[in-house]
Amino acid sequence: MTERLVVIGGDAAGMSCASQARRRRGPEDLSIVVFEATEWISYSACGEPYFVSGEVTDVTSLLARTPEQFEQMAIDVRLHHLVTEIDIESKTVTVDTPNGQLIEPYDQLMYSTGAQATAPDVPGVDLEGVFELHTLNDAVALKAAVNTGTRAVVVGAGYLGLEVAEALTLRGVPTTIIASRSYVMNRSLDPDVGATVTEAIRGYGIPVVESTRLESITGIDGKAVGIETTNGYLKADLVVLGTGVHPRSDMAEAAGIKLGPTGAVEVDDHQRTNVSGVWAAGDCAESHHRLTDQPTNPQLGTVANKQGRVAGMNIGGEDASFPGVLLTSITKVMDTEVARTGLMESEAQSVGIGYVTGKAAGTTTSGYMANAERIEIKVMAEKGTGRLLGAQIVGGPGSGKRIDVLATAIWTGMTGHDFAMSDLSYAPPFSTVWDIVMIAARRAADAATV
Amino acid sequence: MTERLVVIGGDAAGMSCASQARRRRGPEDLSIVVFEATEWISYSACGEPYFVSGEVTDVTSLLARTPEQFEQMAIDVRLHHLVTEIDIESKTVTVDTPNGQLIEPYDQLMYSTGAQATAPDVPGVDLEGVFELHTLNDAVALKAAVNTGTRAVVVGAGYLGLEVAEALTLRGVPTTIIASRSYVMNRSLDPDVGATVTEAIRGYGIPVVESTRLESITGIDGKAVGIETTNGYLKADLVVLGTGVHPRSDMAEAAGIKLGPTGAVEVDDHQRTNVSGVWAAGDCAESHHRLTDQPTNPQLGTVANKQGRVAGMNIGGEDASFPGVLLTSITKVMDTEVARTGLMESEAQSVGIGYVTGKAAGTTTSGYMANAERIEIKVMAEKGTGRLLGAQIVGGPGSGKRIDVLATAIWTGMTGHDFAMSDLSYAPPFSTVWDIVMIAARRAADAATV
Repeated sequence: MTERLVVIGGDAAGMSCASQARRRRGPEDLSIVVFEATEWISYSACGEPYFVSGEVTDVTSLLARTPEQFEQMAIDVRLHHLVTEIDIESKTVTVDTPNGQLIEPYDQLMYSTGAQATAPDVPGVDLEGVFELHTLNDAVALKAAVNTGTRAVVVGAGYLGLEVAEALTLRGVPTTIIASRSYVMNRSLDPDVGATVTEAIRGYGIPVVESTRLESITGIDGKAVGIETTNGYLKADLVVLGTGVHPRSDMAEAAGIKLGPTGAVEVDDHQRTNVSGVWAAGDCAESHHRLTDQPTNPQLGTVANKQGRVAGMNIGGEDASFPGVLLTSITKVMDTEVARTGLMESEAQSVGIGYVTGKAAGTTTSGYMANAERIEIKVMAEKGTGRLLGAQIVGGPGSGKRIDVLATAIWTGMTGHDFAMSDLSYAPPFSTVWDIVMIAARRAADAATV
Repeated sequence: MTERLVVIGGDAAGMSCASQARRRRGPEDLSIVVFEATEWISYSACGEPYFVSGEVTDVTSLLARTPEQFEQMAIDVRLHHLVTEIDIESKTVTVDTPNGQLIEPYDQLMYSTGAQATAPDVPGVDLEGVFELHTLNDAVALKAAVNTGTRAVVVGAGYLGLEVAEALTLRGVPTTIIASRSYVMNRSLDPDVGATVTEAIRGYGIPVVESTRLESITGIDGKAVGIETTNGYLKADLVVLGTGVHPRSDMAEAAGIKLGPTGAVEVDDHQRTNVSGVWAAGDCAESHHRLTDQPTNPQLGTVANKQGRVAGMNIGGEDASFPGVLLTSITKVMDTEVARTGLMESEAQSVGIGYVTGKAAGTTTSGYMANAERIEIKVMAEKGTGRLLGAQIVGGPGSGKRIDVLATAIWTGMTGHDFAMSDLSYAPPFSTVWDIVMIAARRAADAATV
């Protein structure tokens, strides 16, 4: 008898799941239908700032695959189909479609609804000129509005906020960033590293208004003209809300699917929820942090792809596990690259892991080379053992992707001393003879094991 | 009683050793003297091609530290002091100095004589216009000659040969590379990857004459005018011999210090030779290959620095080990980056390790970004287990340093499957959502474990 897999949400997690399940089970064994609320599937939300900036000209470039490609794999993709309710008893979902409501049965259900932007609860968020940047349609709308913008404010100084600020600046719109703390990226970086990034951003002529919260957006004739903050008034006819996202888990919770402490759907390492036959993956689901042993809700495209893949492999009959996360991430503002992996100091403190840190500042290449760029690395190691726990990098071109080397070292439990004696590549156009990642790791381990 | 450390050779291994020993033992406990045959210490041989190209203008930029800096650490650096003989019975060395011969006693002896260029045994190598590129003085001489060169040939297509060919081309001298095999870098790359690099080099207008050996250098009035090869005659008034180097181990062997099968000095993991109190490190010493379990003589600045450090730590009273090598290395020709780590196919075959390979071709960044560059990765995994054994990368800017991630994964014994599910960074300006290193590793592991 043919089983039926229903996938709710056609982005990275959902489509990875569908593809992997299909590779392992033919259409006569498993029928697959994807209900996607919008007209877009498999799109790169991470690419949206580069569409706004103009570097990416065609919005469809951000689509990894088309519905037609999935149809060829016998995956039935239904756009403009919004699932509104799950009934785990009858194993059905209720779907709002352009042609009315449907009740659709499932044997296996993939819950991959993603996340949605969290608008601040202040007056004025519905004014014209106020934007989020989460869906592809958000990106199209913001890009269209940029042409008319004369002064922008980005509320929020996380990854998205900084990337949007860069995009608007590149489009020639004077842009100010509102940061809730005294430094940017406070959920990803320690205060000292965040301060370095903040100064770099200011160096590009992008003001960062620090330790400030949005109180309201003011408008005239329904159009935004400025914002009131805890630190005064700023003129702005473009206001972008980069105030975070939250998992779309309400429908799961209403159906009796258990959420975890992060508010996202709780899953085991096979992406199973507490309800038999119901799987979850991606931004709406939790992940296991390998270092804290705590659930986390990373909101990363890499994680969505991997979790979706694992769920699809398991639905396909394999025994696949998602191994957890280090929250490795990267971004850039102009030519300053920023990356992190593993624990921040505050995270280590909150779970009671004893740590020390080591820092190194140097160059991405041999210092005498024309392309040498400044790079600063902070590494955290476990007190007593020297085991690597985290790293943060700020620097010029060539800096950021070095985080992957440290992420791999942390993933495998290396000490800073072992890592510093490992065999990394060197040539003058690429690094100093001791790559700076090794120097920082050794310093952290030295301090950890005195 | 004060011990005396004599260091033979003041480059990376020797000076690292001296520094590390000094940090741990004061001058009253350990006197340190370095005998260096030339006028240069601590120089970056790897930087020489970039001095020849003109990217580095001042040769002293290639010096990591000066004799004065070592003097301040109470390390006595004697330039133009050539050690000619070691007597392990009397614990003395014979030194030719500008003021005559000395007999100098030692308690601890660091043998760090490095390597020397291997000139091919053909007529004409002493003609004017024929150069090696090993010492800093070689670099100065070659750079001076470039101004008068109208046509160059580089004999040898290893790292140095390619880097010199790039340098000469950038200086406007039409340059041809003579490769002994049908592809370049045959000691570092598999034939298929080497062929890709060869085509890239030709694409820059640098001819590669393949499967060809030098037979003689012809001259008129003592000056080179061309070369005879197994494939015919080529005009050239600049001939650079990039035909490899060999460890300077003769003096050690003559003294009764044991050499290994590579012809370099045999050492244990503490950098001890077979003679008590005599240490060796760097290009003149062997290393242990972590995957083949065989001795190797890598001729890499990274290894020299690490081995010298280990020797110095041990002389300083610690218990430090050199953990071996994966032969990780990197270079570039114009904007093509090339890197490798771990085993080539021929190496795996020679030690009887069963393997499969996986390849991936893609882009360094998300494909829709303006800075996307082509990148190709080949990964080798152990048959049956999927354990990662080697990787080779060719691609545009941003490709090469990815080798470090794979080197770390190989170093720690990861399988391709584990690595493919690890937590690497992603943002559109930096990679695809599955970094291409993960895709290649997964393909290799899939093939290894079917």
